[in-house]
Amino acid sequence: MTICGVGLIGGSLALAARREGLVERIVGFGRGEANLKLAIERKIIDLATRDPSVAAHGADLVVLATPIRSLAPTLKALAPSLPPTAVITDVGSVKQSVIEALEPILGPAMALVAAHPIAGRETTGAGAADADLFVGARVIITPSKRSTPGAIDAIEQMWLATGARVEQLPPDIHDILLARASHLPQLSATALAAALEDATVDGRWAADYGAGGLRDTTRLAASSADMWVDICLTNRTAILDALSPMNATLAELTSMIESGDEAGLRAIFERGARMRRRLGGSGTA
Amino acid sequence: MTICGVGLIGGSLALAARREGLVERIVGFGRGEANLKLAIERKIIDLATRDPSVAAHGADLVVLATPIRSLAPTLKALAPSLPPTAVITDVGSVKQSVIEALEPILGPAMALVAAHPIAGRETTGAGAADADLFVGARVIITPSKRSTPGAIDAIEQMWLATGARVEQLPPDIHDILLARASHLPQLSATALAAALEDATVDGRWAADYGAGGLRDTTRLAASSADMWVDICLTNRTAILDALSPMNATLAELTSMIESGDEAGLRAIFERGARMRRRLGGSGTA
Repeated sequence: MTICGVGLIGGSLALAARREGLVERIVGFGRGEANLKLAIERKIIDLATRDPSVAAHGADLVVLATPIRSLAPTLKALAPSLPPTAVITDVGSVKQSVIEALEPILGPAMALVAAHPIAGRETTGAGAADADLFVGARVIITPSKRSTPGAIDAIEQMWLATGARVEQLPPDIHDILLARASHLPQLSATALAAALEDATVDGRWAADYGAGGLRDTTRLAASSADMWVDICLTNRTAILDALSPMNATLAELTSMIESGDEAGLRAIFERGARMRRRLGGSGTA
Repeated sequence: MTICGVGLIGGSLALAARREGLVERIVGFGRGEANLKLAIERKIIDLATRDPSVAAHGADLVVLATPIRSLAPTLKALAPSLPPTAVITDVGSVKQSVIEALEPILGPAMALVAAHPIAGRETTGAGAADADLFVGARVIITPSKRSTPGAIDAIEQMWLATGARVEQLPPDIHDILLARASHLPQLSATALAAALEDATVDGRWAADYGAGGLRDTTRLAASSADMWVDICLTNRTAILDALSPMNATLAELTSMIESGDEAGLRAIFERGARMRRRLGGSGTA
């Protein structure tokens, strides 16, 4: 198995796969020398390389765990040296455009099984990798034209072994669901945090007057800008469709406050509270 | 001391005041019989009454801890039976309009010192009261025309004794700061949650595909609709001023995703991340 991008997700998967005895040898491929060195020290990988032909050599399974827009360039660099029947998978948060970018690169006997483990933390890099990261997490597998039954089964078994709950979805359905459940909350947190960055009153920074609620509501804004620019640019239609009801609800709230529409305000606050009760859980994972 | 509204805030203040030996006798005034009974059982109050003249009789200090728009009706009900030099305070999240509503009700020798403890939990009622709720919390005192130096000092000492950090601010500055630091995050969480309430794709509820980030970003949406309708209607101008940059940032994000403006998107994600790092803390209080 070769892991391209030994970060939080790639590194955690390597640790879990090793613990479960799923792999003989794990090769880590990446650009950052310090991160690869740490991955070796932590025994996440057996061999670290920055050379794509070394990374590709003998790799039955390639896990692409780099930022979304570098998945295709990475696979392109490895492709010439991969075994002809290699199975390729990824861990990206967007599936349709990733599949469209990766499929043309595959050799004729290779298979692609795109996947998305819905797990994350604010920490990044090999230092944050944790064999238990995926226990109880949801992993979506999105089979496509180039997914063979055998490859789908192998990827499914791998994720089940990490302790994840595995589900298959069509790539476009995945992207629409995640635009609402993940990309929209991110944009909401970022917009709130960005709007408050310079909000001072009489020399006082407004955010200093917030409590736990402000910290919760903006927590996602700390996420990697690189990762989120990629997601925004590769899942545009679904994200725009998700933004539209959020923008409309904020506009409604705004005009109801303007006009003092007590019943309208109450109805929206009650809708929000109903959704939150149905969602359950108290907050930070 | 008479506490009008023996809920989370009023009840916690009563418990802390008693522990610190600040008061001789605490009378609880409220509408809910079961809640008052619980407050007696938990020894939060010495006497429970639903009769305003009983609640007012001999009360040197009246703490108004009901929802914002019932503060003035409550004080009006008590006023005829209050001692002529009673000191009135409140714990509402909005100050300017509360002061404007309460001042005309005061007898000529009474004093008003409006205050706002920035503390809260998702739990409510006397059962949730906790003597330590205010330890380390920020309490804003907003002196006004009818605040005497002696009354300001008494209220300040009371809050310091609970373990809070006390600060004085003009009421209008308080309202502008809190519109940004508290009311805006609430509206953002409510709009997100309300927009997701009915978001299903192919029979799947989108929110089921969210992780800890969705739960954090919507946590505030569980708050009391009654409380927030009151805040929206009593701090309108400041809230509308706070909504405007948030709405503008969301509109910017939307058009940047539409046009694929990578540099613009990166700049907003970086602004959000910078704000979040400056804010610090990981989330849920």
